Amino acid sequence: MPTSESVISRCLLLAEASEEPGFTTRTFLSQPMHAVHEQVGGWMEQAGMSVFTDQAGNLRGFYPAARSSAPRLFIGSHLDTVPRAGAFDGILGVVLGVALIENLGGRRLPFGIEVIGFSEEEGVRFRVPFIGSRAFIGDVDNELLATIADAITAFGLDPSRIGEAQTSSDAIGYVEFHIEQGPVLESLGLPLGVVETISGQSRLDLLFEGKANHAGTTPMNLRRDALAGAAEWIGIVEREARAVAGAVATVGRIDVAPGASNVIPGSARMTLDVRHSNDNTRHDLVNRLLHHAEQISAARGLKAYSEQRLDQPAVAMDPPLTQLLERAVTNSGHPVHRMASGAGHDAMIVARRMPAAMLFLRSPGGISHHPDETVLAPDVADALEAGMQFLAEMERQHA
Amino acid sequence: MPTSESVISRCLLLAEASEEPGFTTRTFLSQPMHAVHEQVGGWMEQAGMSVFTDQAGNLRGFYPAARSSAPRLFIGSHLDTVPRAGAFDGILGVVLGVALIENLGGRRLPFGIEVIGFSEEEGVRFRVPFIGSRAFIGDVDNELLATIADAITAFGLDPSRIGEAQTSSDAIGYVEFHIEQGPVLESLGLPLGVVETISGQSRLDLLFEGKANHAGTTPMNLRRDALAGAAEWIGIVEREARAVAGAVATVGRIDVAPGASNVIPGSARMTLDVRHSNDNTRHDLVNRLLHHAEQISAARGLKAYSEQRLDQPAVAMDPPLTQLLERAVTNSGHPVHRMASGAGHDAMIVARRMPAAMLFLRSPGGISHHPDETVLAPDVADALEAGMQFLAEMERQHA
Repeated sequence: MPTSESVISRCLLLAEASEEPGFTTRTFLSQPMHAVHEQVGGWMEQAGMSVFTDQAGNLRGFYPAARSSAPRLFIGSHLDTVPRAGAFDGILGVVLGVALIENLGGRRLPFGIEVIGFSEEEGVRFRVPFIGSRAFIGDVDNELLATIADAITAFGLDPSRIGEAQTSSDAIGYVEFHIEQGPVLESLGLPLGVVETISGQSRLDLLFEGKANHAGTTPMNLRRDALAGAAEWIGIVEREARAVAGAVATVGRIDVAPGASNVIPGSARMTLDVRHSNDNTRHDLVNRLLHHAEQISAARGLKAYSEQRLDQPAVAMDPPLTQLLERAVTNSGHPVHRMASGAGHDAMIVARRMPAAMLFLRSPGGISHHPDETVLAPDVADALEAGMQFLAEMERQHA
Repeated sequence: MPTSESVISRCLLLAEASEEPGFTTRTFLSQPMHAVHEQVGGWMEQAGMSVFTDQAGNLRGFYPAARSSAPRLFIGSHLDTVPRAGAFDGILGVVLGVALIENLGGRRLPFGIEVIGFSEEEGVRFRVPFIGSRAFIGDVDNELLATIADAITAFGLDPSRIGEAQTSSDAIGYVEFHIEQGPVLESLGLPLGVVETISGQSRLDLLFEGKANHAGTTPMNLRRDALAGAAEWIGIVEREARAVAGAVATVGRIDVAPGASNVIPGSARMTLDVRHSNDNTRHDLVNRLLHHAEQISAARGLKAYSEQRLDQPAVAMDPPLTQLLERAVTNSGHPVHRMASGAGHDAMIVARRMPAAMLFLRSPGGISHHPDETVLAPDVADALEAGMQFLAEMERQHA
């Protein structure tokens, strides 16, 4: 019976499968992914699952139901990582899935369970995220296939058969365990959170154009300083986002030109990232921020330009399945915290085809995408317990 | 007799002497500097001056006094340019000096006049500015000499004799005509300005350190966003500088890390450039800005670091010589505007050894260090007239 410690040990062991010695860097169908398949596949087989790799490189282990022609529950997350990643983002959800099967100790349920390790979620290798889960729901178009075909072939798979990766119609749901990758649960002192929605996201590029000029000879009142305008606007971005419950807005990048210490900035390019679980709220916030950019520019003799790069709607998790997951958390003795996920996850893609639910585990320090990323052993134990309760609830429902 | 048009034509002709076709780029003792020496030297000789190049590469033309052993007035500016410069910064002051001599039409004054074209002011080639005027006042140390020796040799000069560039003790003053390189005179509708002081300058590097984090999963109230802190501070830099008459403060450069659109900035590095004609006022302003940086950091859970890179005191022009120049402007029919120069000039270096004064010509659009840099012909005519009046005042004084 796997303990929380063994789950963590397994994650740490898999973190050694890396393209870069001393770090964990494991992109889509890279060489070290073979070792991960072998290792996780072995644990799956030990747990009584039949294992195969689909033609999108997803690792899949099936644990049969008590009777044939039963429906199928999916438990999954992704096997790939960002460069110099931590040991838990993605892989923990797969290892936990296998541990739940082991915990069944061979006992059959009224539904089969497939644990799936998606080959790609982070979007690092081809700058396209969610390749594994997109193949799973049959959403790999020809353009994407052309991009990834060589990588699939090199991994020993057949890109022309990628359609076989698509899920069957007997699915009753998908559940994903994942580290929160944020500080919310920690700040609340809670081990687990139930995801209601994956936030929608706007990405924009902004440009403030003023006039580059000599920093010594241009009086303050005759300046058209693009950075001063940008700074005023960044302050407003922060203030407006704080005023909307659940909203986050980030200027993550700024580049000023010419960028010399003795020259007034003539232009400032910025990115804006806005997320919220309600798309209307998000659009309203973005529009307000753009309006402020224009007002600031007008007042300062600047010009403001903006371009939308992404407008991704929020994705709700399935309410009945989420309620069931919530009950599982309650039954395992923890208060339920419903939350939005500010980051995208495979569950967001899979939700297009079947009921999906997500459970977050507290991220100490809110740290992820970094070697310091970690999880607490008691939280993993709580997640295992909640997972067993979830299977028990599903069992009752499908009895 | 040279007109304002011919002065402008000469500047435009000299602008063709460039290291880069299609632009004006002429650094310290670069190849095209030979053509400038030949051309300007020719005009000097035509005006009755004896011409030589000192061992620092300064072009010097001497117009003798009515009697031997008379004192000497210097009129000068620099011959080098920034990369992709305009046609007037520096060279206009030299061409105007030669034109004043031509305007004397051979008439001798009670003092000799040396027109000097400094070889280096912009600091481009060796990242050390004012090499020409520093050699002129005997301020080239061994370290600097070692840096520039090969360039001097390659130009056909002898670095071991650089001491000969030093000015003699018979100097009665130095006057420099220069474009303003700023918008002040234009905003006042004036052609000429008399420089009282060359502003002192502080340069600092600042670093705000926060915590890089996921832009989607980190709520607004749990962020330590280095850029948000920097933006607040940049707003205060602008506000505080505006509140101090004659002060300018500029954040010309900002670099945030990691600099991804979906990551909260963990650090923001900035430059700060503060200038004022009064050193105490400047120091007070810098200290206030650093205090604000610390307050902002403390309030936001950031850390602020600063490092001073430059603390260059203000340099006053010589009051009697400046008054004389002022009178010359008045006599030529223009209101006098006394101003500080926010940029450094050769006059600032020369002022250490002799009385120095400076006259600014209006810069249309405040533009300089750019191919669009220009001067208005009537302003050049006014400067010529003021220069003749200045010589007349000097003549009266030294009669």
